[in-house]
Amino acid sequence: MVNQKGEVQCINDEILEKLSLKNRYKFLNYNLMSFLEKEHLDFLKKAQKFFIGFENRNNITHNEDFYEWIPEIGKEGLITRINNFDILDMNFEPHGFTAEFMRTLATDFFDPQLTMGMGANILAINPLLVHHEDVDIRIKALKELVTGQKNGCICITEPERGSDAVHMLTTCDQQEDGSYMLNGEKIYQTNGPKADWAIIYAVTEKNSGNTMGQFLVDTSWDGWKVERINIPWTPRIHLGKETFTNLKVPPEYVLGKPGQGREYLFEGLNLERLGIVILNVAEAWNAITHAVIYANMRKQFDQMILKFQGVGFPLADLWAETMNLTLSTLNVCQRVDKKVEQFGSVPKQFNLTLMATAAQLKSISAKLAQKAAYECANLMGGAGVCDNTLMQDLLGITRIQEIGGGTRQIQQYIMSLTLRQLFKLL
Amino acid sequence: MVNQKGEVQCINDEILEKLSLKNRYKFLNYNLMSFLEKEHLDFLKKAQKFFIGFENRNNITHNEDFYEWIPEIGKEGLITRINNFDILDMNFEPHGFTAEFMRTLATDFFDPQLTMGMGANILAINPLLVHHEDVDIRIKALKELVTGQKNGCICITEPERGSDAVHMLTTCDQQEDGSYMLNGEKIYQTNGPKADWAIIYAVTEKNSGNTMGQFLVDTSWDGWKVERINIPWTPRIHLGKETFTNLKVPPEYVLGKPGQGREYLFEGLNLERLGIVILNVAEAWNAITHAVIYANMRKQFDQMILKFQGVGFPLADLWAETMNLTLSTLNVCQRVDKKVEQFGSVPKQFNLTLMATAAQLKSISAKLAQKAAYECANLMGGAGVCDNTLMQDLLGITRIQEIGGGTRQIQQYIMSLTLRQLFKLL
Amino acid sequence: MVNQKGEVQCINDEILEKLSLKNRYKFLNYNLMSFLEKEHLDFLKKAQKFFIGFENRNNITHNEDFYEWIPEIGKEGLITRINNFDILDMNFEPHGFTAEFMRTLATDFFDPQLTMGMGANILAINPLLVHHEDVDIRIKALKELVTGQKNGCICITEPERGSDAVHMLTTCDQQEDGSYMLNGEKIYQTNGPKADWAIIYAVTEKNSGNTMGQFLVDTSWDGWKVERINIPWTPRIHLGKETFTNLKVPPEYVLGKPGQGREYLFEGLNLERLGIVILNVAEAWNAITHAVIYANMRKQFDQMILKFQGVGFPLADLWAETMNLTLSTLNVCQRVDKKVEQFGSVPKQFNLTLMATAAQLKSISAKLAQKAAYECANLMGGAGVCDNTLMQDLLGITRIQEIGGGTRQIQQYIMSLTLRQLFKLL
Amino acid sequence: MVNQKGEVQCINDEILEKLSLKNRYKFLNYNLMSFLEKEHLDFLKKAQKFFIGFENRNNITHNEDFYEWIPEIGKEGLITRINNFDILDMNFEPHGFTAEFMRTLATDFFDPQLTMGMGANILAINPLLVHHEDVDIRIKALKELVTGQKNGCICITEPERGSDAVHMLTTCDQQEDGSYMLNGEKIYQTNGPKADWAIIYAVTEKNSGNTMGQFLVDTSWDGWKVERINIPWTPRIHLGKETFTNLKVPPEYVLGKPGQGREYLFEGLNLERLGIVILNVAEAWNAITHAVIYANMRKQFDQMILKFQGVGFPLADLWAETMNLTLSTLNVCQRVDKKVEQFGSVPKQFNLTLMATAAQLKSISAKLAQKAAYECANLMGGAGVCDNTLMQDLLGITRIQEIGGGTRQIQQYIMSLTLRQLFKLL
Repeated sequence: MVNQKGEVQCINDEILEKLSLKNRYKFLNYNLMSFLEKEHLDFLKKAQKFFIGFENRNNITHNEDFYEWIPEIGKEGLITRINNFDILDMNFEPHGFTAEFMRTLATDFFDPQLTMGMGANILAINPLLVHHEDVDIRIKALKELVTGQKNGCICITEPERGSDAVHMLTTCDQQEDGSYMLNGEKIYQTNGPKADWAIIYAVTEKNSGNTMGQFLVDTSWDGWKVERINIPWTPRIHLGKETFTNLKVPPEYVLGKPGQGREYLFEGLNLERLGIVILNVAEAWNAITHAVIYANMRKQFDQMILKFQGVGFPLADLWAETMNLTLSTLNVCQRVDKKVEQFGSVPKQFNLTLMATAAQLKSISAKLAQKAAYECANLMGGAGVCDNTLMQDLLGITRIQEIGGGTRQIQQYIMSLTLRQLFKLL
Repeated sequence: MVNQKGEVQCINDEILEKLSLKNRYKFLNYNLMSFLEKEHLDFLKKAQKFFIGFENRNNITHNEDFYEWIPEIGKEGLITRINNFDILDMNFEPHGFTAEFMRTLATDFFDPQLTMGMGANILAINPLLVHHEDVDIRIKALKELVTGQKNGCICITEPERGSDAVHMLTTCDQQEDGSYMLNGEKIYQTNGPKADWAIIYAVTEKNSGNTMGQFLVDTSWDGWKVERINIPWTPRIHLGKETFTNLKVPPEYVLGKPGQGREYLFEGLNLERLGIVILNVAEAWNAITHAVIYANMRKQFDQMILKFQGVGFPLADLWAETMNLTLSTLNVCQRVDKKVEQFGSVPKQFNLTLMATAAQLKSISAKLAQKAAYECANLMGGAGVCDNTLMQDLLGITRIQEIGGGTRQIQQYIMSLTLRQLFKLL
Repeated sequence: MVNQKGEVQCINDEILEKLSLKNRYKFLNYNLMSFLEKEHLDFLKKAQKFFIGFENRNNITHNEDFYEWIPEIGKEGLITRINNFDILDMNFEPHGFTAEFMRTLATDFFDPQLTMGMGANILAINPLLVHHEDVDIRIKALKELVTGQKNGCICITEPERGSDAVHMLTTCDQQEDGSYMLNGEKIYQTNGPKADWAIIYAVTEKNSGNTMGQFLVDTSWDGWKVERINIPWTPRIHLGKETFTNLKVPPEYVLGKPGQGREYLFEGLNLERLGIVILNVAEAWNAITHAVIYANMRKQFDQMILKFQGVGFPLADLWAETMNLTLSTLNVCQRVDKKVEQFGSVPKQFNLTLMATAAQLKSISAKLAQKAAYECANLMGGAGVCDNTLMQDLLGITRIQEIGGGTRQIQQYIMSLTLRQLFKLL
Repeated sequence: MVNQKGEVQCINDEILEKLSLKNRYKFLNYNLMSFLEKEHLDFLKKAQKFFIGFENRNNITHNEDFYEWIPEIGKEGLITRINNFDILDMNFEPHGFTAEFMRTLATDFFDPQLTMGMGANILAINPLLVHHEDVDIRIKALKELVTGQKNGCICITEPERGSDAVHMLTTCDQQEDGSYMLNGEKIYQTNGPKADWAIIYAVTEKNSGNTMGQFLVDTSWDGWKVERINIPWTPRIHLGKETFTNLKVPPEYVLGKPGQGREYLFEGLNLERLGIVILNVAEAWNAITHAVIYANMRKQFDQMILKFQGVGFPLADLWAETMNLTLSTLNVCQRVDKKVEQFGSVPKQFNLTLMATAAQLKSISAKLAQKAAYECANLMGGAGVCDNTLMQDLLGITRIQEIGGGTRQIQQYIMSLTLRQLFKLL
């Protein structure tokens, strides 16, 4: 078996071959083609072609250190499509949220852990895109991240302040030369141990979100210490616990001065959450695609298991939920793209609407991704829980999906606040 | 209390007034406005304005026989917007599926049982629209139905053949004069006892779907007998059990000859199911709107109950699911409208896709509507189950929503078949 | 068809006959016999025999006013088995919670609305049993209720104080002659309009639970006014909204003086909630029994629908959940009975444990009863939602099951408080 | 931190210490004490004491190879309590299913992966217990397994015959000397690579379950080859893929001749499935105990998160479901024990009932265990998915729980068959 993922083969050759990246892409495309514009369908197929070639050329089994692949993916312009990056003379086309959705689908089917890892790079890209102010070092960092030459991470969450990002304990003290000295601890940063560039949030006064600043940090500096923490569900992604000890940040690296950080933290949250929604949708499709192919081939009691209603019907239900969420997400992406096209950026009013919409889709998509992976694995029996396919990666990743980007409770809190505000308008 | 619905008041004046049709419309509009084109938002508001006026003018308490309202609603062009009906010199604008969605939302917030009853009229309109062949009597029936002067129903389901529409027992025997003689029993026809026009399916040979014909019947003819059956969940809608005894159908009333009926039966099914999806979405919104207003006003333990996370969070989750389904349904409606605009009708290939999509959204929306009504009623406590608001109607209707338009199992069957066909393309 | 329930027949004779009370009892007994002691199985069968005979003798169709049946049921000793009632020289054997479970199962299969209505009588019996203090009039009321000669209700819930029973607005003012004058409004009292005896809670100071008293009231007195409210889900049960205007309660009718009422209100709550659990379990079994019989007989596509996994598997899952809850409830009933046998009453420590257990099983059973009724109705298609069987009653009743005895949120609140207390013991 | 499980600490000392084995046991005991007989509560506490001492003495961090611990656990009589093993002169007291439940609870709180691994030993013990026929070598194997000196596994599942155990491909050919030659492949055997003794099922004729035999195999023999397969969710449990190449089994090792194997395979299935139920219940309790302790200590927004209803209420619901299943399982265990006490073994009629009951509780418990672990991990945020506590092990194990002992579909199939049989009795 070419590109064998697990050491001991638990699934027969015929099925493993049918589960190839190419076939899985085909299944996905048949599902989406009627609902995509030509431009986006073409881009999806082009990205898929790249990953099929990339997998073949490098004999990839998806047990490798995926961080090594990122430069080549960056060269292809597939790290993010959120912007055309004309500031870097890139001119990505198509770009925008629908394009980003397509990119994520293609990337996730290829390697889900890679996709999640690259997602953390995007989180570092976003603030640089908005706050580079044409400062050379910021443009340089942005370019290195967008092209995949370097990796990035953002540092918000702290050991004693998980969901409560506003009451930070990490401090930033301004020095006489205009630089800032950072001290404190952060935890659960995706890419932390691999990051060349980090975006760090810190406050001048502990627990006071109004004094928050936003800093770009070169992780080769003194004062940055990182330990890799073990999240067994994503064994190839490096997550970190970082300690800052008199970590000195020169003035040109200060993206947001104390007082600006809080707003900067929240400004990108909608789009970031939509990014997570897209990721979750991609994982659900990947799991369902595996299960559909498997159930159409695996025989038990002399019949392909799809034809047993006890298998085929629950699978159909998962497919329905995934399609429903996909159509909804596409709708939102297209609307955001339209607004950006029309107004240059997302209008303030629409961004307020998006806050609720992103929370709604984030919470739904995280639940669906985990359900799809878990139930599809069940329908595949032993084949679903062994290490021969990407179901292994999907089962693991989706277990932790509700925690990133704000727990379920945070999303519920945002939503219930909105229900209060909407009532007041009546 | 004006327009009091129940005899004994269980909810206080302040809350009952806030639950007015006008306020509920406002809440809905705030939720949808960012995702609608101006044309559709305007039409939604216009339809809402009509129903607010209609309710006030007639002092409606929603305990009335709604069938009496239909002519006036028809005059306003609010029975269906599926077509512009230029064949009747109507030129409804806007029309199409998105417009139909708007019309249904406005109508359902006004009166859910009316909306479901009018839905059965639309089911009779559809085959006439496609198969009138400019025959006078058919055009006449079509016009009477579209304008609400008359009511209609379709007769498919039989006592011993529920989900299995193809193995019918009702027979049609051709007579020497070209007319057909119908004999048999049908059951569960919405509007059956109120229908002036009926569309009946029957076969020349029992159990043989290939011999099916489609007939337009004037219910004043001899041979048509109808009993009202008691479905306690929709007390104001009349459902029927019909017996045909030598019911004679003249040639010009034969919409589809034996052999054509089966195809005719299935051809409209996608769009009909989408109609049901829209109805379900509207009911979910109606229930959620009631609960959001109530939870923002009702105090327990000295605090509005929305602020208890035990109330506010589950409500937020229902709202999220309803928004998700709404965005997805809007996407499908817009895409269907685009195709029809482009090609004049839904292209065959896209109609095949729609078969799966309609089954997916139908099964999801039926479950969501019942969940939303049940859970919102719970969150409203006694106020949710008494007869003072439309929650009464919503609780009842949503209990039977999975059965109309094909049970959950029928939808799952269609979907799992599609998963087989998609696999074969790989 | 003998004993036809609905006017228009929607289900064929063969199936309707198989759904007879006798057959449904048989199915239930096969499920339970391995898990019951002989004494309880025998009592269950004896009660079943009574109801089969009662139904036949009286040609009951379950559309009747069931309140008229209660005297005869009381004569048979089947109104409650919570106690042997030796105080009334009754000596019911078997008695206790397991016996009460059996009694409820037999009664609910016969007529669910009757069973719920009689449950309200029991709520009035409990405080009299504990607080009669051998006062003649209280013993008289107790006897009339236990023997079914009279009906009773308890008045806790108020229009503005639903779940918050402690902050009552109904007042009791002591008069010079030792009597109390009651003023205020209550709402949602089961049996309210039919009650001869009422147990009323009222406070000397509004919103102050510590001043609560408990009163026995003869509803023929001046100052008691009751309106029947319309809860469409239980059309044959009479629920009331009561207004007390200078309702004078003589001293011997004062069960608990101001200050004692709050404790009296809570003391019986555990056992009352267990009573509701039992009721819910009985309804789930009743629904499942209907669906199992129907699915074994109804054919579609030439096969009994049980054999379609899409029908048989979900039905099996509901059956599993119902059996699980039944075994758990039986365990609790047997343990309570053992404690009472051993100590004469439920020991205080065990009663504290029961507070959490009752909340746990109450919330689970209410959800299960509604799910079982809804899903079984779906599996039965049109037959599940028409008025030909008791499914009609079960669908309606289970819609409101989460509200009685404390909403879901109240149960969750009790449970989460217990989790705090348990932690403190660590 | 003593006994630190993960390398990098993500949870603070205070909470980690409160999560100690001793405290978790205490929480469990407070929940169960009111529902256990003294004999079983005492045994539970004794087993807990052993594991607390064992953990301390050996400085266990639960990253170790647990197979090395089994001999000492065996010496303590804690490998299984299903029998008193008087055949081995053991006389375990208490024994039976309730005792086994207690043993499993104590063991699982200590180390879930160990508990699952030891469970596979029990699967090998069961057939030896029933079919040793006093043959020396079988008694020897039985003793070695019960005392933990050796490990065992059973070999049923094959690569191409997952859920379909009856249509085996592994063959057994009788030789002239009365021995059997085994050839074929098995897969997903827990303990396979660690087993000293294996119970193998094979057929004389492929796909013919009626020709099945049952064999005891010493894994040091030629012809036994095993590869460890990688199931990432249980990293410390060794699962195997075994290849038998002319594996020769002498006559005294033939537990069941061809023709007897099928019955032998099914005979123990009920009790085995109840064993899995117990395991699932234990895992649910373990997860909930972690979350309750954590939620009572972790503060966010200056308040312990349990007090946020958004956290405390879902946790309460999981606790309710787990208690419900526990009470139900206890009921079944007690009833089985009673029957065995009365009749010496489980009576045939009761064993038929148990087939349905075991399928019911197996399917419910597997779903609950996964839900409890997943949702508790979510409620614990990052602390729930890192490697600092046993939540890591619980999250992993519960992902695969539905597959062992027959998939959900197999349980549903058994149940729906029973619903058919029960109907026929009416």
